[in-house]
Amino acid sequence: MAHGHEWYMELALAEARKGLGRTSPNPAVGAVVVKDGKVVGRGYHHRAGTPHAEVHALADAGPQARGATIYVTLEPCNHTGRTPPCTEAILAAGIAMVVIGMADPNPRVAGGGAAYLRQRGLEVVSGVLEQPCRALNYPFIKHSTTGLPWVMMKAGLSLDGKITFRSRQGAALTGEESWRFVHRLRNQTDAILIGVETAIIDDPSLTTRLEGVADTRDPVRVVLDSCLRLPPQARMLHQRSTAETWVVCGSEASSDREEQLVRAGARVLRLALGADGRVDLPAMLRLLGARNLTSVLVEGGAGIHGAMYGQRLVDELLLFYAPFIVGDQGTPLVSGYSLARRDQAPRLADVALQPLGNDFLFRALVRP
Amino acid sequence: MAHGHEWYMELALAEARKGLGRTSPNPAVGAVVVKDGKVVGRGYHHRAGTPHAEVHALADAGPQARGATIYVTLEPCNHTGRTPPCTEAILAAGIAMVVIGMADPNPRVAGGGAAYLRQRGLEVVSGVLEQPCRALNYPFIKHSTTGLPWVMMKAGLSLDGKITFRSRQGAALTGEESWRFVHRLRNQTDAILIGVETAIIDDPSLTTRLEGVADTRDPVRVVLDSCLRLPPQARMLHQRSTAETWVVCGSEASSDREEQLVRAGARVLRLALGADGRVDLPAMLRLLGARNLTSVLVEGGAGIHGAMYGQRLVDELLLFYAPFIVGDQGTPLVSGYSLARRDQAPRLADVALQPLGNDFLFRALVRP
Repeated sequence: MAHGHEWYMELALAEARKGLGRTSPNPAVGAVVVKDGKVVGRGYHHRAGTPHAEVHALADAGPQARGATIYVTLEPCNHTGRTPPCTEAILAAGIAMVVIGMADPNPRVAGGGAAYLRQRGLEVVSGVLEQPCRALNYPFIKHSTTGLPWVMMKAGLSLDGKITFRSRQGAALTGEESWRFVHRLRNQTDAILIGVETAIIDDPSLTTRLEGVADTRDPVRVVLDSCLRLPPQARMLHQRSTAETWVVCGSEASSDREEQLVRAGARVLRLALGADGRVDLPAMLRLLGARNLTSVLVEGGAGIHGAMYGQRLVDELLLFYAPFIVGDQGTPLVSGYSLARRDQAPRLADVALQPLGNDFLFRALVRP
Repeated sequence: MAHGHEWYMELALAEARKGLGRTSPNPAVGAVVVKDGKVVGRGYHHRAGTPHAEVHALADAGPQARGATIYVTLEPCNHTGRTPPCTEAILAAGIAMVVIGMADPNPRVAGGGAAYLRQRGLEVVSGVLEQPCRALNYPFIKHSTTGLPWVMMKAGLSLDGKITFRSRQGAALTGEESWRFVHRLRNQTDAILIGVETAIIDDPSLTTRLEGVADTRDPVRVVLDSCLRLPPQARMLHQRSTAETWVVCGSEASSDREEQLVRAGARVLRLALGADGRVDLPAMLRLLGARNLTSVLVEGGAGIHGAMYGQRLVDELLLFYAPFIVGDQGTPLVSGYSLARRDQAPRLADVALQPLGNDFLFRALVRP
């Protein structure tokens, strides 16, 4: 029995998800080839510099691709990058119809692949499950159009908005389900960002730990540390990890400290500091983007959260609430930020509430 | 077509809800009479001292009650109070079968009505939709078994747990849907409690305002005010309202102030103060319970919330979150309370998350 376009696009999305967090600076893309209502080929983009999803799916389909329909979550590329254009691969395979999830986000090339395929006589349908296809690649879309990474502000907090039980104490408030969720998120995110205060107090590893998942990948650890106070013996520098630790400091920071940190395995990146003596956050994000980090998970503390949210640099909020009130002694979610009136608040979209064990997750996009 | 017991009990519950907030210290109870699968009578308890739900439903059914089944959300009473026992009314009407939602919560009389009816040859089924029947009457159940009112801690707060934009500023954070929810809640609650600080800063009316609802009822306003600082010109004392304002103060508070407040329409209730110079909260709750207030909505501010939550006097949390972060200047949800460790937190049950326009409601029962 043949299904509608959305059914097959869902299968292409499922393929795409297999590459999530592995393809930067490329998008996660999936494709399926369908002949007479039957799926005859599947594929997804594994890693930048390797074949695109379409090529995998066409190879999987083999000669059955002739006269078939290909479903692909993102418009096929029409230019030669590190791999030849997918439009040519589609033509060569004899595909009759192309169904596209979302157009290429780059305004200079959007529609080019689709138009070229139409010119060559193929039937092309666009915009099938466009929103889920976009949601899968918010980081790619932002990075490819602005050069900046997608910024997720993540915190575990009490019902009254405290992120610790006491100041300068790092015990987690949230439970196991939240922990697992955060680690799945880390597994799909290019970088994780914390302030040096948090690095010193918590001495975290910031790796991805997922039981039963073999090929986890750590995000690059980024520590904002204007004066290079991070101890060279910090745990994150002395562990097995697939990722580096980057320490972002001011141009005047001690080169002795730099040398010690570099010897401990860190990469030290210097930036001009802002008037407040702190790392200039937009410049820092440009730096990460220029190095092909398309997404960054901001994990605090309060000062970093306050500055990122206050400077409107956050694209997505992920707040994991624990089911209790912490009260006077706890550290507030943000510091250095104040909202005066409701109509001055950043507007949110796609708000979702999700129970996670005894906790719950508040997730929303922040409108630019 | 005949339905199962639960179907008819739902109808009885719908009847019961019509009396919510009107029946204290009695429960809200509903009943339907069903003959050959058809509803032939409906009724609910309107107000303490007036006939019970069963009597209304039987009267509505008239001679059709003979041989019929009655569904009632609470076990019929078997004793003479201000009205004769419902068991006798059921027998006199010739009812053949009685289906009960929940047993009488009073352990001394629980099961008595059901057993009596069984003795007299009726078929009796108990525990149909028991949990929803209980949930409808948490205040009655607690009050009739302990003499204390059901305590709901209610606050509108930001994602970071602030209840104002700035300290000593009363502007609401939450939006219109939350406002309507709170007023529906006030309409069903016997009392509303605030601290004198909040009364002075916000000068609230604390009445029930529901557009398009004619017969709203205000909760009794209770102000905790150990030294009688409430101004006699406070708005809540100079408005049309179906309810009184009670000011709870210490035994030593000025009688001049009392006289002024009484002249302005308040009722002044004196209690011995605690060692901290504040109103003793358990004594205050006993006082409200003794005056047949079965439920109280605690609306802040932070000191009252902290004391009530910290002394484990809260039965239910209702937190209305606005979709933004307020930051440094806001008043925290609680003050005077600190939780040291996760395992010392009161445990919650029946947690529910509900979007309300742009806000969302976190609602949960606090385990004793």
